[in-house]
Amino acid sequence: MSILVVGSVAFDDVTSPSGSMKNILGGAATYFSLAASYFTKVRVVAVVGEDFGPEQEQVFHQHDIDIRGLERAKGKTFRWGGSYTDNLNEAKTNFTDLNVFETFQPRIPAEYADTDFLFLANIQPTLQADVRRKMNRVRLTGCDTMNYWIKGALEELKETLKLVDVLLINDTEAKMLAGETNLPRAANKVLAMGPQALVIKHGEYGATIFFREGAFGIGRHPFRAPALPIEEVKDPTGAGDSFAGGFMGYLASQEELNREVLKRALFYGGVMGSFAVERFGTERLQALTREQIEERFQIFRELTHLD
Amino acid sequence: MSILVVGSVAFDDVTSPSGSMKNILGGAATYFSLAASYFTKVRVVAVVGEDFGPEQEQVFHQHDIDIRGLERAKGKTFRWGGSYTDNLNEAKTNFTDLNVFETFQPRIPAEYADTDFLFLANIQPTLQADVRRKMNRVRLTGCDTMNYWIKGALEELKETLKLVDVLLINDTEAKMLAGETNLPRAANKVLAMGPQALVIKHGEYGATIFFREGAFGIGRHPFRAPALPIEEVKDPTGAGDSFAGGFMGYLASQEELNREVLKRALFYGGVMGSFAVERFGTERLQALTREQIEERFQIFRELTHLD
Repeated sequence: MSILVVGSVAFDDVTSPSGSMKNILGGAATYFSLAASYFTKVRVVAVVGEDFGPEQEQVFHQHDIDIRGLERAKGKTFRWGGSYTDNLNEAKTNFTDLNVFETFQPRIPAEYADTDFLFLANIQPTLQADVRRKMNRVRLTGCDTMNYWIKGALEELKETLKLVDVLLINDTEAKMLAGETNLPRAANKVLAMGPQALVIKHGEYGATIFFREGAFGIGRHPFRAPALPIEEVKDPTGAGDSFAGGFMGYLASQEELNREVLKRALFYGGVMGSFAVERFGTERLQALTREQIEERFQIFRELTHLD
Repeated sequence: MSILVVGSVAFDDVTSPSGSMKNILGGAATYFSLAASYFTKVRVVAVVGEDFGPEQEQVFHQHDIDIRGLERAKGKTFRWGGSYTDNLNEAKTNFTDLNVFETFQPRIPAEYADTDFLFLANIQPTLQADVRRKMNRVRLTGCDTMNYWIKGALEELKETLKLVDVLLINDTEAKMLAGETNLPRAANKVLAMGPQALVIKHGEYGATIFFREGAFGIGRHPFRAPALPIEEVKDPTGAGDSFAGGFMGYLASQEELNREVLKRALFYGGVMGSFAVERFGTERLQALTREQIEERFQIFRELTHLD
């Protein structure tokens, strides 16, 4: 089945303990769509500037990602610069030049109307809600957000959350959104805001999915997937979006949404996140095979599996 | 098989968001031995003062814990006071009165000479090494330590590490001991100091066991056990010692040490840690049944198990 991602495409400058790279293709929609492309047909709605050329297009085409929804605007593409020091879980933002992204108004091409799954990457909550309302025939909607919107647009975000099935955020965001420091209690409060399921990403410790009572017709026990201990994390940028791409992409590839499928999706999220951080930018995500993904899935499985 | 724990017995004053308790039985050896007592025969070497009476003795006797190695000294038992605020992973120490523990010199009763397993709870590294040398017939030695010794007695600690099979510490301690912020790299450095295996406890995210090449005749792939998301953590004190008690106690109950046994031990560690934090002090650990432990083990298993 097909999945549509709405979010940012960007050029990033990244510095980490492993080195520095400038002008590398990034943005949530880019990481997400590359990760999801190994599982299903991906469509993108985003905006880029005049500096986005055939070289960048090629990255999407090579993965058979449909970019008919990629709007070309006058000016420059969104640019972000960040540094990671010892704590690779947290980026220090050096600059954010929104450029054409500042006035982004997602336009859904008519050809995208039959999309089955939707992922609202981290953009302004009201834009997320508008897209969700337009795509009212989707089977399942995933959503991301960030501290910036939780602090600055909480009411709008709460409206959006009523329209989404799965929210994917990290520990800090979940606790901030709920106003609650205990994780399972925070999860319950967020689920009461609307989503059927909440995926909380724990960085190097994996991720947990919490369910509302009765969600997807399955029990509400949480489920946890590990993360792989990685000796060299070159660039953590996009790990969360790659996680979401693996998670949502796998869901979209399955006929049925049951507990076992959701569990496996959480593992595939971790797998794609673990690949993403091994190289700068999207380098690793561009050059994977489904076989390598399955191999790593088995390693993740072995990591916590009791016979 | 039998296991000997050498460490502290204490009275604690604890304040957490769930309330306050004074003069409750605590100490690493207490938590460890209670947790391990559900799996195997436990022996204790520790020191207490004149304020340790029949009421406290009874706690050990009820779990068939052998306290012939519990020395009675003139003066007061070790006392510790701590508070937890929102971050339940970190205690603020309000006071530490070492009392009789200050001059603790572990004496091993002759009847303990045939002990099969040894756990060196968090005490001065040279004392740990002395005990280990005296108990030179044990099959396996586990060891704990803390930041205080890593900073203040690093050379002594390194000598001790040459004598132990499994070191159990948390993320911060592992990184500090290795002088390395990446977890798997830190693990490799610590393993190079001597232990066959290193258990790194991640608090609410579970624990990972790393192995030296060839350790226990098994592959060196790490293994990870989850922690249960707990809605009300009343008192995190002793969670790590209870983890160690579950881990080591289960190992001591098994005929063979293979990969599957070590994996299950890591799960049992998490199980006992999860019980410990549900009530103040050792209250929960005092009143468990093996059936409840098995039930929770199944919940832990389900938490990450793919069919």
